[in-house]
Amino acid sequence: MNKKNPILSLKHSDKVAVISHINPDGDSLGSLMALGISLKKICGYVDIFVNDVIPERYKFLPEIETVVLYDENSDKRYDYCFVLDCGDEDRLGYSKKLLRQSKSIINIDHHVSNTMFGHMNIIDNKASSACEVVYKLIKDCFFIDDLDISTCLYTGIATDTGNFVYDNTSAKTHKIVSKLLKTGVDIQQISYHLYQSKSLKSVKFLGHVLNKLETSYEGKVVIIPIPLTLLEEYEVSEDEVEGVINYARDIKGVEVAVLLKEIGRNKVKLGFRSKNDVDVSKLALEFGGGGHKKASGATVFNTLEEAKRNLEEKLSTYVGW
Amino acid sequence: MNKKNPILSLKHSDKVAVISHINPDGDSLGSLMALGISLKKICGYVDIFVNDVIPERYKFLPEIETVVLYDENSDKRYDYCFVLDCGDEDRLGYSKKLLRQSKSIINIDHHVSNTMFGHMNIIDNKASSACEVVYKLIKDCFFIDDLDISTCLYTGIATDTGNFVYDNTSAKTHKIVSKLLKTGVDIQQISYHLYQSKSLKSVKFLGHVLNKLETSYEGKVVIIPIPLTLLEEYEVSEDEVEGVINYARDIKGVEVAVLLKEIGRNKVKLGFRSKNDVDVSKLALEFGGGGHKKASGATVFNTLEEAKRNLEEKLSTYVGW
Repeated sequence: MNKKNPILSLKHSDKVAVISHINPDGDSLGSLMALGISLKKICGYVDIFVNDVIPERYKFLPEIETVVLYDENSDKRYDYCFVLDCGDEDRLGYSKKLLRQSKSIINIDHHVSNTMFGHMNIIDNKASSACEVVYKLIKDCFFIDDLDISTCLYTGIATDTGNFVYDNTSAKTHKIVSKLLKTGVDIQQISYHLYQSKSLKSVKFLGHVLNKLETSYEGKVVIIPIPLTLLEEYEVSEDEVEGVINYARDIKGVEVAVLLKEIGRNKVKLGFRSKNDVDVSKLALEFGGGGHKKASGATVFNTLEEAKRNLEEKLSTYVGW
Repeated sequence: MNKKNPILSLKHSDKVAVISHINPDGDSLGSLMALGISLKKICGYVDIFVNDVIPERYKFLPEIETVVLYDENSDKRYDYCFVLDCGDEDRLGYSKKLLRQSKSIINIDHHVSNTMFGHMNIIDNKASSACEVVYKLIKDCFFIDDLDISTCLYTGIATDTGNFVYDNTSAKTHKIVSKLLKTGVDIQQISYHLYQSKSLKSVKFLGHVLNKLETSYEGKVVIIPIPLTLLEEYEVSEDEVEGVINYARDIKGVEVAVLLKEIGRNKVKLGFRSKNDVDVSKLALEFGGGGHKKASGATVFNTLEEAKRNLEEKLSTYVGW
């Protein structure tokens, strides 16, 4: 296998699978599709799999209709399995099985925490996104003004950088995007699907939650409890709820924002965001979760009230303002 | 004067004024400061003027403390007056007077509607922002890794493109930003000032308004009336209110969003946004205003209720769905 670029070693007769993490997002789907479309130009047999339903807003991605929901009973075997945007094997859900059913695993990622589970590991933790890593791999091969591939890569880069504002955004990121736009990427159309197709009810839900926000610890903390009944009343998906936390973090003086989302009987998902120096990955660890310094999460088995009380206790002793 | 680049003709003895439009925004202030800082490296006498108070969130811009509120009683005369981001003379407010008090007017802009009021007019309507035009002018002169200038230019480009999503964003825009970031621009710090310093009250205000949104014309129109009493209750600035309209436009199915902001007794400011094909500049014209196809505005002298009724009448006959 070509040590710098495994794609250069592929033959038409190779059977290839392309997979990514559970709960698909813009970068996992963007990189999945960009690499999948690329590999189809070389190999005669390419399967692109997901583990979960694809959120509505990503359904505009080119060739997304060729993606297959992975069937855990499948016994198909592959020469190569390309794994994208996935820090460890457990994030693959059911499709983890494919790792055993493939001769060679190629692990392509940008997470600093990647466990190097592949036979070949192409990890660039300076890259903004898996899409940025994929761009570098395919540009040497056949990435010649392919609008579909550019559209997928742009989507992954834009979503994983919060439209070029997160600190993973680099000069290189903008240089790559400049090259992608030259192929004719329609950023208006992409923005329309990603950001301008919200339901009226989800916007009203956001309004309800924001209007009720309260700060504590002299304005440094915002805690947002979301009961299941509220999600049902406004008919919002779990996925639509998570954006709320960023509005709370963006309030002047707020250092930590925590979203407590009731997702079942005695089951609450915690989401943490920080603005400056507080490391919320440590806070999440206290609840058996994990993540990054500025964004982390955990799931606890409590009522919403108990979860909120526990959080307040931890905040007072742990963060210790 | 050098016909391609007037900056190349400047001498140390030249007296220079730099001005921009009323109601300063990220691009007017970014281009004002980037050019102002640059010109100070050449000329011994450079005055940078504004007409209005600088909004709090732009006060992080390098050297912004050297900017002077224009005094209409001043009789100072200049060799050159550089005018930035300004489509016509009337948008200059009081500082329009400077045009008569300067030997040479250099008009630098990106608006397609620019009236070419300068002795020299450097107008690039393909540029995303005035900052993009300024970048091209100063890069040939002395734009060598100057972090302060890059910070100003980045701020103008980012704000005028809505963080690189509006349709004025081009491959060239990203290429320029890539070069700016190489000088060490701290996008985290800039984002912090621009977007992450909202008051709790302004976020609660947003929540209140979003929660009460209603659509009409089968979901194609959203009208948002904001009474003065609401602005007073939540202590929000006029400037903070205007973002609300984008949330309304981003609802699925909405084609036109209209914000009616009561700004005084019998005085209402209308803001129009459209998503796809409706040309809201024409709609604004019906109320004596103007603007672009997707964003326009007008001011009417009515009560909020009358203004809303008039709007609904115009919508039914004019848009005619």
